[in-house]
Amino acid sequence: MVEKIIVIGCGAAGATAALQARKFNRQVEISIFNSEPYSQYSRCGLPYTISGKVGSFEDLVLMPPDNWGALNIDAHLGVTVTNIDPKSKELVFSSAGDESTLNYDALVFATGAENADPPIKGLDKKRVYGLRTLDDAKALSAEVNKAKTAVVIGGGLVGMEAAEAFHERGLEVTVVEFLPHILLAMVDSDMAAIVEEHCEEHGLKILTNTAAQEIKGKDSPQSVVVQNRETHEVSEIPADFVVVATGVRPVTTLAEKMGVEIGKSRGIKTDDKMMTNIDQVYACGDCAENVEFITRAPMAGGLGTVAVRQARVAGINAAGGDVTFPGIVGAKVTKLFGLEIASTGFTDDMAQRFEVPVVKGSMKGSTKPPYYIGGKELKVKTFYNKETGKLVGGQLIGEEDAAMRLNVLTLGIQQNIDASELFDFENCYAPAICDTWDPLVSSADAARRRLKM
Amino acid sequence: MVEKIIVIGCGAAGATAALQARKFNRQVEISIFNSEPYSQYSRCGLPYTISGKVGSFEDLVLMPPDNWGALNIDAHLGVTVTNIDPKSKELVFSSAGDESTLNYDALVFATGAENADPPIKGLDKKRVYGLRTLDDAKALSAEVNKAKTAVVIGGGLVGMEAAEAFHERGLEVTVVEFLPHILLAMVDSDMAAIVEEHCEEHGLKILTNTAAQEIKGKDSPQSVVVQNRETHEVSEIPADFVVVATGVRPVTTLAEKMGVEIGKSRGIKTDDKMMTNIDQVYACGDCAENVEFITRAPMAGGLGTVAVRQARVAGINAAGGDVTFPGIVGAKVTKLFGLEIASTGFTDDMAQRFEVPVVKGSMKGSTKPPYYIGGKELKVKTFYNKETGKLVGGQLIGEEDAAMRLNVLTLGIQQNIDASELFDFENCYAPAICDTWDPLVSSADAARRRLKM
Repeated sequence: MVEKIIVIGCGAAGATAALQARKFNRQVEISIFNSEPYSQYSRCGLPYTISGKVGSFEDLVLMPPDNWGALNIDAHLGVTVTNIDPKSKELVFSSAGDESTLNYDALVFATGAENADPPIKGLDKKRVYGLRTLDDAKALSAEVNKAKTAVVIGGGLVGMEAAEAFHERGLEVTVVEFLPHILLAMVDSDMAAIVEEHCEEHGLKILTNTAAQEIKGKDSPQSVVVQNRETHEVSEIPADFVVVATGVRPVTTLAEKMGVEIGKSRGIKTDDKMMTNIDQVYACGDCAENVEFITRAPMAGGLGTVAVRQARVAGINAAGGDVTFPGIVGAKVTKLFGLEIASTGFTDDMAQRFEVPVVKGSMKGSTKPPYYIGGKELKVKTFYNKETGKLVGGQLIGEEDAAMRLNVLTLGIQQNIDASELFDFENCYAPAICDTWDPLVSSADAARRRLKM
Repeated sequence: MVEKIIVIGCGAAGATAALQARKFNRQVEISIFNSEPYSQYSRCGLPYTISGKVGSFEDLVLMPPDNWGALNIDAHLGVTVTNIDPKSKELVFSSAGDESTLNYDALVFATGAENADPPIKGLDKKRVYGLRTLDDAKALSAEVNKAKTAVVIGGGLVGMEAAEAFHERGLEVTVVEFLPHILLAMVDSDMAAIVEEHCEEHGLKILTNTAAQEIKGKDSPQSVVVQNRETHEVSEIPADFVVVATGVRPVTTLAEKMGVEIGKSRGIKTDDKMMTNIDQVYACGDCAENVEFITRAPMAGGLGTVAVRQARVAGINAAGGDVTFPGIVGAKVTKLFGLEIASTGFTDDMAQRFEVPVVKGSMKGSTKPPYYIGGKELKVKTFYNKETGKLVGGQLIGEEDAAMRLNVLTLGIQQNIDASELFDFENCYAPAICDTWDPLVSSADAARRRLKM
């Protein structure tokens, strides 16, 4: 019987695992460790503390430190776990220079991910930041009060959300993206191009297909040297400070050291109980690898939604329960300068990578009937397995109701529906809301014809 | 083989049936009849021609009369069908006093519904209207330019949308509803009460549990005499004009006369091909009865979405195809003074009527995470079959993203999911969009616990 649970990490995954373990089991001893000095805060909310859409740093704290005591969970904040012995089930941690040990029956890794810095000269300068921690956000919030120019290296979700925030605070912002388009981990090139145009219209400078080579300046940046990968032209962009957001990698050092198996995605390999190869050792959230929902191929999550769902499973199972995680669909969404960008399941690239032949349904529609005022253009793409006709992905872009429409596609993927079933979907209709045939349904119709269903 | 198709009615159902028949079969002769002088227009858009959210009456016309010719469809607008002989398959119609006949191989009834006037004195006065036809809307648009007070009898969807439009045009508007709450065909009492409060805050006067007894005045209204059904108090409400919107009944006279079977809902009974009891005679839209999706019990549609979906099936089958209609879920939605009201599947009342024991998951959440600015309150209810745990309905109210969230529930019902599956739903998440656990998922969680799933 489990008497002692230790959770390492106190982000969305760690905090949820501890909470759910407690909910499931009132008796078990639970300890949670965080190397950061903070209790659980919303990592995804960080860019919005800079723009002011989140009022204060305190607002982001989802679990006030005092609450842990009330839940009878022993929280070690600002404490680093240094070693774990899987045989004696003993964990070593250091706090203010002192080493202590603690025993566990069940262990949950929720160590998250860390920035994977690219090979760029000058990353060690002052005023060069990531945007992953509350301290990063605090530093950047101070920067926008004094800086005039910023360069963001990396046009993924975090990079673009940071760039929007800096721009909203009045800075001149340039995004440098190595790949031919921004957001390619999320959407196809044609969709990304729409987002780029929209952001540029709102004043962002975006350099795609461009390598950042060096951050120049004495102690802190003066400019970033970039090279266009096609023309090989080199130029220099003024920058009072630089944010590097070129992606993350799972934090797995401790786990590896104790013999936990690492998967192909570099995350900690887990089964459908979120258990690793070692009995009663679990992993969840950004540090974990689980399976992609459709193909059951290995996949790291890297999403808040996935993290809390995996953490619930890990926490309950660690506390003696028996629940399962269904796999990662990977619904992703953001809003940039009022434009909603939404993606679920496979993109074109992912379909190739997971070797699923696809048929697409594309649709340029409107969020409302043409006769009603104020409808916004909506671009929809849905993807189907060419052989089975099953829905395997979708992307939407529009100034309203793109993200919420995505939810229909995600549930559709989870329910294994095909193009005919999506075509039969009875969307709601009212002039002030949406037309009789929703653009989602029309995209399914286009695909259905192509699939001869 | 079908060589001649006749479609009676040119609303959403009739026009769609004719179009889909043509798309499916390039050779077949198609004729379409409309007793109104117009070609297909959006009936649901009518209230918005009054408020100005639809720019002009012309904007509502979805199928310009000239287009029928281009599609090689013979349109008889402003022409009434007077008789049909099922033996000789001959239809009689009168146009400008002349009677003519036309033969068919397949016939589609899309005769719609008509206002079912309640037993109120004075309904025959001038300036007493329905709001079902383009002519009604034109007359009411003229009224709002000269009137100061309006009474709307009936607080259903049409009545409330009309009331909102009059109010937006500066009139003093009173809604008189016989039942204890408005919108009870769509939502439960507790949800309706929220909508009432919202509309009253925006300046509408709503009298529930109140019977309209008489429209007083000489030729046209001066006031409406109403009686509170609880207190029996009688009062008089000033009214320059009156709109009666107390519900509709299917138009089935012609069909009945030729021997077509009428169902329990008073609509024309149809099977899953939208065929009536007479071979090659179809019905679709507001005049038709089909089945409720979950219980397969008889149900009239009465919704634009259902009409076009049934019409597609009827049109294709009439033209020699073989497609089926999956049944009516009944997703309904509207927006009143910025508040979205959405409902799908069973309400409390409907669950009782269809004898399905239910367990509910209720949730008062927010459309966005608590730390992000501008989230709106969202009230969610989801309904599950007490014995099977299957999702059978849901209602949402909120100032944003209520209607689009409803779509997830409708697809869920169509895919026969249970509370556990909705709880496992991977909703999209981003601070600017929605929280990690969507209120829909939280409502499923509440129900799942109650269902011990």
